[in-house]
Amino acid sequence: MLGQMMTQPLLISALIRHADRYHNETEIVSVNTMDGTEVTTWGGVARNARKLGSALTRLGLDPQARCATIAWNNRRHLEIYFGVSGAGFVCHTINPRLFPEQLVYIIDHAEDQVLFIDRTFLPLIAKLRDQLPGLKHIVLMGPRDDEAAAMVEGLMFYDEFIDGGDADFDWPQFDENTASSLCYTSGTTGHPKGVLYSHRSTLLHAYAANTPDSIGFSAMDVVMPVVPMFHVNAWGSVYSCAMSGSRLVLPGQDLHGEALVGLIDRWKVTLALGVPTIWLGLLGHAKAVGSTLDSLQRTVVGGSACPPSMIATFRDDYGVDTIHAWGMSETSPLGSINQPLAKHLDLPEDELHSLRESQGRPPFGIDLKIVDDAGHEMPRDGQATGELHVSGHWVLDSYFHKTRDETLTNGWFDTGDVASIDADGYLTIRDRSKDIIKSGGEWISSVELENIAIGHPMLADAAVVGVHHDKWDERPILVGVKAEGAEPTEDELRGYYEGKIARWQIPDRVVFVDALPRNATGKVLKRNLREQFAAILAGQDA
Amino acid sequence: MLGQMMTQPLLISALIRHADRYHNETEIVSVNTMDGTEVTTWGGVARNARKLGSALTRLGLDPQARCATIAWNNRRHLEIYFGVSGAGFVCHTINPRLFPEQLVYIIDHAEDQVLFIDRTFLPLIAKLRDQLPGLKHIVLMGPRDDEAAAMVEGLMFYDEFIDGGDADFDWPQFDENTASSLCYTSGTTGHPKGVLYSHRSTLLHAYAANTPDSIGFSAMDVVMPVVPMFHVNAWGSVYSCAMSGSRLVLPGQDLHGEALVGLIDRWKVTLALGVPTIWLGLLGHAKAVGSTLDSLQRTVVGGSACPPSMIATFRDDYGVDTIHAWGMSETSPLGSINQPLAKHLDLPEDELHSLRESQGRPPFGIDLKIVDDAGHEMPRDGQATGELHVSGHWVLDSYFHKTRDETLTNGWFDTGDVASIDADGYLTIRDRSKDIIKSGGEWISSVELENIAIGHPMLADAAVVGVHHDKWDERPILVGVKAEGAEPTEDELRGYYEGKIARWQIPDRVVFVDALPRNATGKVLKRNLREQFAAILAGQDA
Repeated sequence: MLGQMMTQPLLISALIRHADRYHNETEIVSVNTMDGTEVTTWGGVARNARKLGSALTRLGLDPQARCATIAWNNRRHLEIYFGVSGAGFVCHTINPRLFPEQLVYIIDHAEDQVLFIDRTFLPLIAKLRDQLPGLKHIVLMGPRDDEAAAMVEGLMFYDEFIDGGDADFDWPQFDENTASSLCYTSGTTGHPKGVLYSHRSTLLHAYAANTPDSIGFSAMDVVMPVVPMFHVNAWGSVYSCAMSGSRLVLPGQDLHGEALVGLIDRWKVTLALGVPTIWLGLLGHAKAVGSTLDSLQRTVVGGSACPPSMIATFRDDYGVDTIHAWGMSETSPLGSINQPLAKHLDLPEDELHSLRESQGRPPFGIDLKIVDDAGHEMPRDGQATGELHVSGHWVLDSYFHKTRDETLTNGWFDTGDVASIDADGYLTIRDRSKDIIKSGGEWISSVELENIAIGHPMLADAAVVGVHHDKWDERPILVGVKAEGAEPTEDELRGYYEGKIARWQIPDRVVFVDALPRNATGKVLKRNLREQFAAILAGQDA
Repeated sequence: MLGQMMTQPLLISALIRHADRYHNETEIVSVNTMDGTEVTTWGGVARNARKLGSALTRLGLDPQARCATIAWNNRRHLEIYFGVSGAGFVCHTINPRLFPEQLVYIIDHAEDQVLFIDRTFLPLIAKLRDQLPGLKHIVLMGPRDDEAAAMVEGLMFYDEFIDGGDADFDWPQFDENTASSLCYTSGTTGHPKGVLYSHRSTLLHAYAANTPDSIGFSAMDVVMPVVPMFHVNAWGSVYSCAMSGSRLVLPGQDLHGEALVGLIDRWKVTLALGVPTIWLGLLGHAKAVGSTLDSLQRTVVGGSACPPSMIATFRDDYGVDTIHAWGMSETSPLGSINQPLAKHLDLPEDELHSLRESQGRPPFGIDLKIVDDAGHEMPRDGQATGELHVSGHWVLDSYFHKTRDETLTNGWFDTGDVASIDADGYLTIRDRSKDIIKSGGEWISSVELENIAIGHPMLADAAVVGVHHDKWDERPILVGVKAEGAEPTEDELRGYYEGKIARWQIPDRVVFVDALPRNATGKVLKRNLREQFAAILAGQDA
C-alpha cells in the first residue's frame, strides 16, 4: 500500500521557480567577463533562465542533449545552469584549464551539441573549431560582438539568443531520475571520465548541503562561491542557494587575493567556498592591506586537505569559522563535512580545534567505510587506515558510457583515498592511495608532511612524494617552493619536523623548485615529481 | 536519458541506520510512564527498533499492516516509530484525548492490527476491548505486569516482545512511496480523517525541516519535543533529529510548567517545540521559580497562532528566539516558518520584531497561494485576504480511503484557513474560514482580537467568536477566562483594545467562563461558543 501524499518530481526547475516566487528581489552580484560588475536578482535570473529554456527548446535538440559551458562564475552561467537543466537538457560544465586535446576529447565524448563560452575562451575555441564537428551551436555569453562573430562561423550571442525565448515558458515535467548535468573528472592519469548527475541526486544533495551541520546556506547569507562553477557545479552551492534564497556574489575570472578581499568587503560576504590555494592568496592580501574581513563568518574548504595553520589563521586573526569538507566529482561532491557534536562543545579549546582539522562526518544520505585489501570493512577507531569507499543518494552508479561493474566495487565507489574513520564517523583522509609512502612496511601520509611544511614561513608551497630507497623501499622527500626573498636551508626545514611527527617519518631530503606541476584543477602532479626525483636517494642505505 | 547516480529509496529505516552509525552514543533522555527517567542513546534505540521490526515481522502481519500507538513522548514510542515503519508496517499514532467513540471509530477505520499502549491507557482499552474486534495484538509499553495482564486478555508486554526479536535484523528495502505512518485529523466537526504519509514524504519533510531557515536541528542541539508524538509525529521532529543526530529529551506525560522547566534546566535543552498553551504554563512557572532557562535558545511554536506578547516575553525576558510556524496534519505539518531574509537584518528592531509575528514563508518543497471564492489566485501584497491553498512534496494527495477528487481543489489542498501573503511569501493566517467574523461586509479576524486579549494580565485565556447581529449580520464578542484572583470588568477589557485596532473591530461584549471548551488537540470549539452565546446581541442595532 502506497502513501497518499502528492508525488511531485524533484526537478532543478523547481529550485528556480521557488527562488523566483519567494526570493524574487534578492540580489545576485556578478563580475562579468566583458561588461563589468552587475547586480541582478533571483527574479531576473529566473526570467532569463525561462527565456533560455524556451529558446533551447525551439532549437529542436534531442532530449537531454548536452549543452556545454566554458565559463567563469557569473550570472549568465547561473542562468545556463537552470535554463539548460530545467528545460530537460544536460548542462555540461567544462574546465577551461584542460589541455586542448583533453577539451576536444571531452566535447566529443559527451556529444555536446551546444557550447556556451565566455569571451575569454573565444580564441581557443576559434582555433579548435575544426576539431569539434559535433557542435551544432556556439553561443558567446554576452551581447552581439562583430569582432567575435568574425572569429567563429555561425557564432551566436547569448543576449540575442534568449531575447528570442519566452519569458513565460512553462518548465516541462519529467522523471526526476533524468540526467541533468555532467562533469568530467580531472584524473592525473588517463582520459577524463564523465559523471552524469540526475535531477533527483542534485536536489537531494542541495537539501543535505543545506542542513546546519553541513554548510547550511541561509536566506540571511551572502554567499560567494569562489570554487568555479565548472568544478562539480561550484560544489553544488548554487543549487543550495536557490533553495534557500541566499544572496550570491559571483566573482568572475579574477580570483586573486586583491579581487576577493574587495568583493567580500564591498558586498558583505558572509560565507565563501574555495580551495586552500585560493585562500592563501586571500589571506595574504587581507594581511597586506589590513582588511579584517568583517562580514565573513564562514569559509568552506575542500578540493584538497586544508592545512591546520590556515584554519588557525582564519579563526584567530579574522574570527572566521573554517568548515573543512571532503568530496569529489563522483560524490556531487559532498561526502563529509566537519561540524562538532553536542559532546564536543565542552572540550578544551585546543582539543576542539584539533577535532575541526579532520574532514568531518557524512551528512544523512551518504555512508562511508574503510576496507582492507581483501575488501573487508576495517574498524571505525580513528587508527585503522584503509581504502575509503562511499555510497549514497548523490554518489555515481557508473561513469558516463560505462557500466556499473566497471565503476563500483561491491556496490560501493572506491574513492582512491586512504583514510581512517573514528567512532563518531569523523573521517581523516591520510592520502591518495597512490601517493601514500610505503616505508619499510609502514605507511607515511604525504599530506600530513605537506601540512606541516606549508606552516613554515619560508615556504610558499610544498609537496611530499615517496621515492625509491634501497633499504626501505620508499622514503619521503620534500619538494619546496621558497617564499619570496626567503632562503631556507635543507637542514632548517628537516629540523622543523622535529617534535611534530615521529623521527622516522621526517623526509630524507628537501629539494627546491620554482613551482609545483599541477593539473587543470590545481592538483599537484606527484607522478611527475616522483619521476623527476626518482634517483635522488640512490645508493643510500640508512 | 537517465542520470547515472545511485538510486536508493528514501526510507525511514535509513534514518535510524544513520543515527545508529554516526550518532551511536548520543543521549536520549526519556521520562517513562512507569519506570522513571531513563537515559539511552540513538544506538540503544536503533537496536531496540531492529528487535521490534524483527518481532513484528515474525507475527506474519499483512504488508503495511497498521500498528497503532496510544502513548506519551518516551523512548519506547520512539523505537516503535522506527521499528514499525522500518519493517514496512504503518505506524498509526492515536490521540489519547479523543472521546472513546472517536477512538473506536479510528481504530476500526484504520483497520489497526496491533496496538501499543502506555500504562496510562490500560483502563480505557480494557473497557473498550470488546468494541475493537479487529485488533489482533495489544502490547503494553513496559515490562511484564501481572496486574495489567489480568485486565486485558492476551495482553503482551513490549520488553518481552522485543526480546524475542533479532538485534541484527536487516531492514527490508522497498518502494519509497510505500505508506509509513498515519494520523487522523482533529476536526472540530464530522468524523476524523486519516492522512497516510509515505517514507518519501517523511524524509523530504525531515530534510526541509533541517534547513537553517526552517528549524535546522543540529547535532549540537538538545531537542525537547513537547508537542506530542501523536500530534503529526511531534511535527516530524524525531525524524529530523535522527537525521541530524540531535540529543533528545522526551518529556513523557507531565507537560506542566514545573516539569518542563525542570527538564530544560537539568538536561540543558537548547530547542523546544510546542503549542502556545503549553508555553504559557512554562513561562508562568519559570517566572514563579526564577528560572532563567539558560540553555534554551529557540522555541518552535505552532498548532495555533502564537500571541505576539509570548514572542516578546521569550525574547526580552529569556533571550529565546521564537520560531513561529504554520502547518497541519495534511502538510506533515511544515507549511511555513518564520525566519528573516538578509534584507531584514538592517530593519529597526521593532519592525524586525513585528515581521517575526507572521507565520513565515514556505521552505523549498512547499508552495502556497491564496484564492478568492471563484478559485482565482489573489495578489501577494500582504493585504489581500483569501482561502489558503497549499501543494508540495509532503502535502496529502487524498485522505485515507478517499479519492483525490474528494480531497483536492484543482490539484491544491484547501486548508480552510484565511490568510494573506506578502511579496516575499510571508504568510499571515487571519483566521479559520469558518471562524472569521463577517461584520457589515468587512472581515474581522478572531485570531487578531484573541492575540490582543491574551496580552491582558487579568485574563488567563480568551476566545473571540462572531454572533448574530441584526444590523451588521455578525459582531465579535470576547469570551474570557479570568486570571487567578483577577476581576477584570467588561469595560476595562473593551478599553484595552483602544488604539490597538480600528474601533469598529472592538468586540461588542465581553463574557466570562470558567474554561474554554476544547477538542482533543486543544483547539477551542468555537462552534460551541457561538451556539452558547448566539442570542447575546439580540435586539441591538448599533
